[in-house]
Amino acid sequence: VSDPVRIGLLGRGTVGDAFHELIAQRADAIGVAAGRRPEIAGVLRRSEGDFEAILDESEIVVELMGGTEPALEYVLLALRAGRHVVTANKQLIAQFGDQLFDAARMSGVQLRFEAAVAGVVPVIRVIQESLAAIEITKVFGIVNGTTNFILSEMASTGASYADCLRRAQELGYAEADPSDDVGGADAAAKMAILARLAFGTPVALGDVSYEGITEIQPDDIAYAKELGLSLKLLGVAERREGGISVRVFPCFLYAHHPLAPIEGPFNAVMVQAPTITEITMSGPGAGGVETAAAVLGDVVSILSGKAPVHVARGSLEIVRDISSSFYLHLEVADRPGVLAQVADVLGRNEVSVQSVVQRGMGDEARLVMVMHECPESRFFKALEEIATLEFLRGQPRAIRVIEEEFV
Amino acid sequence: VSDPVRIGLLGRGTVGDAFHELIAQRADAIGVAAGRRPEIAGVLRRSEGDFEAILDESEIVVELMGGTEPALEYVLLALRAGRHVVTANKQLIAQFGDQLFDAARMSGVQLRFEAAVAGVVPVIRVIQESLAAIEITKVFGIVNGTTNFILSEMASTGASYADCLRRAQELGYAEADPSDDVGGADAAAKMAILARLAFGTPVALGDVSYEGITEIQPDDIAYAKELGLSLKLLGVAERREGGISVRVFPCFLYAHHPLAPIEGPFNAVMVQAPTITEITMSGPGAGGVETAAAVLGDVVSILSGKAPVHVARGSLEIVRDISSSFYLHLEVADRPGVLAQVADVLGRNEVSVQSVVQRGMGDEARLVMVMHECPESRFFKALEEIATLEFLRGQPRAIRVIEEEFV
Repeated sequence: VSDPVRIGLLGRGTVGDAFHELIAQRADAIGVAAGRRPEIAGVLRRSEGDFEAILDESEIVVELMGGTEPALEYVLLALRAGRHVVTANKQLIAQFGDQLFDAARMSGVQLRFEAAVAGVVPVIRVIQESLAAIEITKVFGIVNGTTNFILSEMASTGASYADCLRRAQELGYAEADPSDDVGGADAAAKMAILARLAFGTPVALGDVSYEGITEIQPDDIAYAKELGLSLKLLGVAERREGGISVRVFPCFLYAHHPLAPIEGPFNAVMVQAPTITEITMSGPGAGGVETAAAVLGDVVSILSGKAPVHVARGSLEIVRDISSSFYLHLEVADRPGVLAQVADVLGRNEVSVQSVVQRGMGDEARLVMVMHECPESRFFKALEEIATLEFLRGQPRAIRVIEEEFV
Repeated sequence: VSDPVRIGLLGRGTVGDAFHELIAQRADAIGVAAGRRPEIAGVLRRSEGDFEAILDESEIVVELMGGTEPALEYVLLALRAGRHVVTANKQLIAQFGDQLFDAARMSGVQLRFEAAVAGVVPVIRVIQESLAAIEITKVFGIVNGTTNFILSEMASTGASYADCLRRAQELGYAEADPSDDVGGADAAAKMAILARLAFGTPVALGDVSYEGITEIQPDDIAYAKELGLSLKLLGVAERREGGISVRVFPCFLYAHHPLAPIEGPFNAVMVQAPTITEITMSGPGAGGVETAAAVLGDVVSILSGKAPVHVARGSLEIVRDISSSFYLHLEVADRPGVLAQVADVLGRNEVSVQSVVQRGMGDEARLVMVMHECPESRFFKALEEIATLEFLRGQPRAIRVIEEEFV
């Protein structure tokens, strides 16, 4: 019988508790499958436990504290002391990835973080291992369950953003302070990690441009529904002429898009490459038990071999002027000539219109349009001009639209 | 600079050619990521090449010959000679898995076969590695692209099975002799492999009960569409009271089912477990380039460590009497009392009806029903009785229906 593999657990919140329980349930089965039985060597809580003592006793350190202080310090100490590390901490990897990967490489140990993106959906593993042999062109998807729940709820009930956020909080899908989720920062950190792995280039948090969902109005969703569109907060990392682009933005998808049916707190990620066309993976986003399962999966992987080496294959430029198609919602005065003036501004800026719906009378009059794809700078220039038109009754609302061709 | 890793390639058909080309394109990038550059040591074709000489020169043997003779002999020789093996050969793994895994274990080498099921969709890796930490309860999905293409085509065009098969053959989605695909044997071999890995138990080909799609009529699909159902050839491997069940059968899915939107030659597999709810993975089924990409992914994995150990955790019973819900299509004489007689037979066999549609007049009269779930033996007993009713104008047509609850 081989020695058990001893695990030092840092942090004992929801995920830590679930991990502790899962180890108790599955230790024997893992012992059979992976050759060594995992056991907990010690637990560090905010109020108790001695990090040095736990490190001494452990072969693998599992970091589930969250935040970057003191998690960064502990993880670096563990890596430098020759311990493998598993973490679910996306901020740690997104902000300090270079430093952490270097430390792991210098010590010849593994740093694994499947749970940091899309919970138990194995997107990290698939990009690093299954798809190591191919050149990925694009990774995109729904990587924040809180916002996907809120948008699904707005679409199905017609309720406001604020009401749906409250409902998400009641159900435990949103935190008391939801700003990281709803503002897009959480998804941005995850996309920085995915872009780094998919393209083999360092990607800093500041390289990711992001928007959230706080400005979305119920009637945007209602009008778009009539056009066959559904709204998602999308993370997109892709190769572009001259480099890569990594962005997070709310976006309408046509009904046939593989991500359109992903509802509620689920995550889904698509990977595209010429060699594979595309693969799609979906499942529940972060939850205590799911995250713990992903962490334990990483522990099992450590038992079965060395991780793929994280070497930046070069440094790619961040490309910022992207082409996109836009949905544009204008509350306008109810009088002739309004559409002509808007169309004139768009035309002069070489933005071409794909569809227009005019709706409502009097104080309810509005124009809802979808544009053909064009450089975003050109659209935003037109938008700026449109915002000054005197017949507008409110700020113009613009949201990106993605329609892709699929096999 | 490390030595290159030398690969002996057995077979040089479509997949072999694509693999050869992919190695040429990606060798440098893999060298950077995995530490060693792959190169082809030799190629064995049907008409040329010396297996012993190629084996001597290789560290990894890639088997892309297909069939079991002489592939089995060569793969066993390679494993026994201490070579890692990558194969895309589902029949080899499904029929001779026990023998092959034993040989790999005895020699301490890896046997990898991601490409054998669902092409580049990484279902093998996810079940063996990501989900090694959890107890999987069910693996199911669409694992044959040929039949999914034919069924999609029947649904969208209303054309007959024979016409859609011909179209699949023209497009290269079906072989000249399509019987393994359309009869369900191909999907059965894949499900035997998935069941073995998911449940850690030996599963022989004979343990998988299967049906194909050759008897499907266009009007079954048309009527079912009215009920919101779409037809798929489904493979299902699941834990059941007393053991496991592994089956392949055509099946109607309700529109909200995650597999319902999978169209054309795509594959999709879902994995369920209490700890993870469910994850879904989808992408293109077998194609030369996709299969080659999956094979090369396995080569990269071999470079990064040892594979999870394939140990049967015990032998589970195959459970054969499953409960299912059925769609039943009866061509009947157009006269009063027909429904009452059918309902009487069903009632006496304790099969309860969920919905009924009566359609057509005279020679077109028919009853289309969907049953509530009940033990299949009970339904088939009722069906046998119904088949003898004198007012039937043709054989009753029964197809399973799956409606699952999703979060």
